Order: sequence, then C-alpha cells, then structure tokens
Amino acid sequence: MTAMPAQTPASPAPAPTVLEAAALSQPVEHTPVWFMRQAGRSLPEYRAVREGTTMLGACRTPELVAEITLQPVRRHGVDAAIFFSDIVVPLQAAGIDVEIQPGVGPVIASPVRTAADVAALPALEPEALADIAESVRLSVQGLEAHPGVPLIGFAGAPFTLASYLIEGGPSKNHEKTKAMMLGAPQLFDALLAKLAAISATFLDVQLASGARAFQLFDSWAGYLGPADYERAVLPHSAAVFAALAHHRVPSFHFGVQTGELLRPMSRAGSTALGVDFRVELAAASARAQPGQALQGNLDPAMLFADWEALRPRVEATVRQGLAHDGGYVFNLGHGVLPGTDPRVPGLIVEEVHRVSREVLAERGA
Amino acid sequence: MTAMPAQTPASPAPAPTVLEAAALSQPVEHTPVWFMRQAGRSLPEYRAVREGTTMLGACRTPELVAEITLQPVRRHGVDAAIFFSDIVVPLQAAGIDVEIQPGVGPVIASPVRTAADVAALPALEPEALADIAESVRLSVQGLEAHPGVPLIGFAGAPFTLASYLIEGGPSKNHEKTKAMMLGAPQLFDALLAKLAAISATFLDVQLASGARAFQLFDSWAGYLGPADYERAVLPHSAAVFAALAHHRVPSFHFGVQTGELLRPMSRAGSTALGVDFRVELAAASARAQPGQALQGNLDPAMLFADWEALRPRVEATVRQGLAHDGGYVFNLGHGVLPGTDPRVPGLIVEEVHRVSREVLAERGA
Repeated sequence: MTAMPAQTPASPAPAPTVLEAAALSQPVEHTPVWFMRQAGRSLPEYRAVREGTTMLGACRTPELVAEITLQPVRRHGVDAAIFFSDIVVPLQAAGIDVEIQPGVGPVIASPVRTAADVAALPALEPEALADIAESVRLSVQGLEAHPGVPLIGFAGAPFTLASYLIEGGPSKNHEKTKAMMLGAPQLFDALLAKLAAISATFLDVQLASGARAFQLFDSWAGYLGPADYERAVLPHSAAVFAALAHHRVPSFHFGVQTGELLRPMSRAGSTALGVDFRVELAAASARAQPGQALQGNLDPAMLFADWEALRPRVEATVRQGLAHDGGYVFNLGHGVLPGTDPRVPGLIVEEVHRVSREVLAERGA
Repeated sequence: MTAMPAQTPASPAPAPTVLEAAALSQPVEHTPVWFMRQAGRSLPEYRAVREGTTMLGACRTPELVAEITLQPVRRHGVDAAIFFSDIVVPLQAAGIDVEIQPGVGPVIASPVRTAADVAALPALEPEALADIAESVRLSVQGLEAHPGVPLIGFAGAPFTLASYLIEGGPSKNHEKTKAMMLGAPQLFDALLAKLAAISATFLDVQLASGARAFQLFDSWAGYLGPADYERAVLPHSAAVFAALAHHRVPSFHFGVQTGELLRPMSRAGSTALGVDFRVELAAASARAQPGQALQGNLDPAMLFADWEALRPRVEATVRQGLAHDGGYVFNLGHGVLPGTDPRVPGLIVEEVHRVSREVLAERGA
C-alpha cells in the first residue's frame, strides 16, 4: 500500500485510504481518526525509546523516528500515522544553529532581526534531508503491517518558523515578531518567503518518500488578528500549499486559537481545515471553503474526565463533524496532553468508528 | 468628585466622567483611555516601590495599593485608574491558604477537588476586606488631584478563581478543571456559585468605598468552547453582575481568547464588553448586545513597534471603535507587557484623544 513515486513512477495510484478519502471530501464508511501529538510524550513506550537522546537527535535518527511514528498506530488503532518530527528540524537541516532545551523549547543561537540576518538565512537543499527521506521510507515500510493506514507528513508554517527565528526561542507574546511585522513589513515579507520555501522543501521530500498527506501546522498564527494574518502571513502559507499541489495529496492546515482566522486560513489551499477546540464545528463549517473537509476538535483536556462523561462528548463531536457539508476527520482540537491516560485514545478510536458507521449507514439507508 | 455613598448618602450623584459616560454608551467629546495592567510591572516607579515586598503583601497594604494605583494616572494621563490588586486576593481574604510565587503565580496549599473540599470553602465576609476598603478610599482621595479620573474596581470571575483552586495554581491546559466540569457538573456548579458570591463581595466593598465602575476579568474563560461556557460558567458570571446591579455603575467584562464567547459573554450583564486583540472590533460589535459599549483592543505586543508604525494602528483602532453603534472605551486587547517602553502609553493616550475628538467633532458637525 505504500506509494513511492520517486522509485516506482509507473505503478498505478493506490486506492485512497479512509483518511485520504475523508480529507478529500470523498465518501467513506466510517470517520477516520488520528490525534495530533499521538506520537510522543503521552506514551510510556515513547519515553522508553527516547531515554538518553535529545529531541533533535531523535528526530534525525531514522530507525527511532520510524519506531516513534509507528507506536501510536500499534497502540491506539488510529487511521493514520503522523510523521514524528519537530517544527525546527528543517531549520537545523538548513544549517541554522538551533537546539531544543528540555522545559524551554527551541533556542536559536543567532536570532534573525535585521536585513543582513534575513539575507544570510540559508536555503534548505533536499540533499540535506537524506535522513528525513530515510525516516519516511522506514515508517512507510513499518506501516505495511497496518493496511489502510497512511503516513501524514508534517511541517511548521512560515509564520511559526519566523517567530522562533526572530524571538530566538519560544515566546509568550511575540513582541519582536509583531514589531517587525508592523515596523518593517518588507523585511518580514522577505523572511516569510524564504521560510515558505524551507517548509515546502521539507514536505516535498516527505511526500516524495512515501507520505500520502501532510499537515502544515501554524502554532503561533492564532496570536494575530485576521487583517494582519491575511496581509502578512496567508500569502506565504498559501505558497507552501501551491508548491506541493502537484503531489495531489490531501492536506491539513491547523493552528490553535484560530477561530477568527478560519476564513482566511481556509483559503490557503488545504483540502481539510483543522479546528481548534474553542470553535464549534458548526461555526467552523460556515467558515470553510465549499467542499473543504474539516478536522477536529475534541478538547484534549476533556480526556482527563471519566470515560462515562467523555464518551457522550466524543459522540457529539462526531455527529457535529458529520453534519458538515464536506469530509470530516476526527482529531483533537490541539495535541494530546502529556499526562493523558494512554488507554483513552484507543477507546475514542472505537467510539468514533462505531458512531460514524451508525450515522453514515442511516444516511445511506 | 468622589462618590462615597456609605458616608454621604444624601449627596447628589456626581456628573459622569468621560470613562463612565462612554462605558454607559452616553455621548462624550473624546474617547476615554485606560490600559489593563497599567498599574504594575511595566513602570520603573512600580518596581521601585515594590522592592522588598511580596505581591500579596503589597496588595494588602493600603498606602502601597493607592500609590501603585495612582502611578499610571500621573505618568500616562489616562482617563481612569484601575484598582491594583490580584485575582486571588479575595480568596486569601476569605481564609484560603494561597501565596503568589515569583515566576510561577498563585499557589493554593490545598486544592479544591471533592464535594467535601467545596463544602469546606469559606465565605468571604465584608469585614475581612477592611484593608481593601481603606485602599480604595486612599486611591480615591489621591484621585482628587486628577479631576474627571474615576477608579475602576477589579475582580476575577468565578471560573478563573475555580481554575486556580482546582488546579492548585496556574495551569496551561486546565485538565482538572475541565474534568470536573464534564465529570462532576453539580459539584462544579456548587463551587462556581460560592465563588460568584466571593467575587461579588470583593467588588461590592470596592464600590461602596468609592470605586465608580468595575471590571470582571475572566482570565481563563477563553479556554472553553461556547457551549460549555454558556452552560457551566455564564450563569455564575451573570450572578456577579446581578448582585452589583443596585450600584448602577458602568461595568466591563473581559477575557483573552474569547472571540467565540463574546455572544454569551455579552449577556452576562456588563455595560461594556472587553475585546481580545485577536478579534476585529467590527466583528465584536456584531456580537455585543444592542446599546452595549465596547472596550479594546490594540495588541499589547504592537507597543514594541516604532511609534511611526504604531501611530496609524492606534488611529485605525479608534476609528473602528467609534464605528460601533454604542459607547467605546480605548484599551489594549490584553494587559500591558512587562518590557513596554513606559513612554509609549502616554503617546497613545494623546493620539486617542486627538483622533476621537476629530471623529466626534465631524460627526457632530
């Protein structure tokens, strides 16, 4: 079931998996489920294999990436694997000095703040991503034991990469980023254009190596108002989707706190729009493009409630998602939280499958 | 100009200040300005007087509270003072063991998680707030040197107090709070009812001592979707406004990340609705009640841009606010950030006054 166009260009396109079909608003028999951050910190088997490694070291070790990518597929029975990586991996691969400090996040040795800094920013060559291509190939190989489960590629969006570079690390308020956006708009634009090319190359290599879909994650876009987003950020996110359009794969675009941004984000070019847990799916439905799928949006904090309280909430989310006039992919409205009971996501997968089969069968009858 | 009904019940009601008039959607000659967190960490004179004190110690020392409350009035020329306090002060006054740890925030010695914990929660008696009454009286006395500048009282909303009590301190994801809300709704409801009474008492004492308006701040409401907010939180915030309605003063209701909540929040009972910086004022205008004033919403991070880039943004915000079909109070869309250049808020005050006089004069002509 793996698609590796670079090596087998003449093979016929494989039948779409349920994840791909739903994200392309095509008919499905049940709603597919995956969880943002399903590969990672909430799983004991993840913490075990990560012992003694750094985050970026792990992200650049193909056997480890493939193992971590597969862990939640084995445990939860999800309908897709998400490529284990980090938002700053393509920056590191481009030659930027960045490390991820535990408890802090990414720290950039030389923040990017002047015209000279932007001019000096290196491009990302596909050759610098040989380990990423290998990680994807190994993950896809491992997924052969799970028929119908595709790999979703992953990258951070240009604005989010820009914020890390300008601030020099994670920021609560993005003061320097916004000051540049407002005070030096041409410089800001030049920086985001360079970062859009880096995001696109990072995803292009994943798709060429066997990923069947991708998610462009804009962690910090939700800190902007819609006018700033539309003027300064949207064109660069749209450039990433445009650069990958020839792959003709399903794509997801998501950021937290983006309720006010969903309308412009829906125009960036993804086949599916990710919805933050703060937004009713019915409201998101009205903000999406015609025919665009929705993804979301159970509040990850709700997974800490008893199953008997959580189950009806899962069912209600599925019913709201299936009321959308377009495809629907079940997910959380943000990533799986660290302390989540690792038995709960699997229960959710079963419940989403059960409820969605029921709703879709009724609809077909 | 001070109103102290408890001591001079027969005196006629003083003429409304520009802040009060705008927040009641009455005619004004210019738009009033104040800044959330104007009293505090961004001012060198604040850091000087706070030296050697704890946060809660400072909040319970009337002379210090009055001095800190007055500092931004002297420096920036704002149209209102905001009472210097902290969200957990009424909890401490009620007898709950809480301290504010620098770099962490409020830490609750015994988190509230069971029916017994909720039952044991003490009520707040007005007698426990003698220092708060004195702080307000001293602040109002100090404001006599600034005619037309009223004092705005301040309290945290029931949901925000509940989150601190349930989590035991600040929380990024509010897992325990949401798990109780979903899994033990009656217990959650009982807790919020008790906290609504505490918030109301805290504000009642401030209003009885000379505050002319108040803001109910719901720091964490923006972490909820609208259905949960409306069912579990809104009735308790509304109870606070209802308990204070007999004061007949202007009131503000605000929380960050509340774009999706503005419609239900607008029904809580405030005369003015505070708007987060993520939301266009035109969009907020459509979500407010008829005749309800708006307050907001310049992004505090934008204050880090050069004045020549920031000035047009201030003007645009004022013009958007004055396009609202109701009163308009200029403010930021969240609190003043710690590293803000203390000269900038004063420039904004002048610009808001200049632009709004121009717009309102044109309108009158």
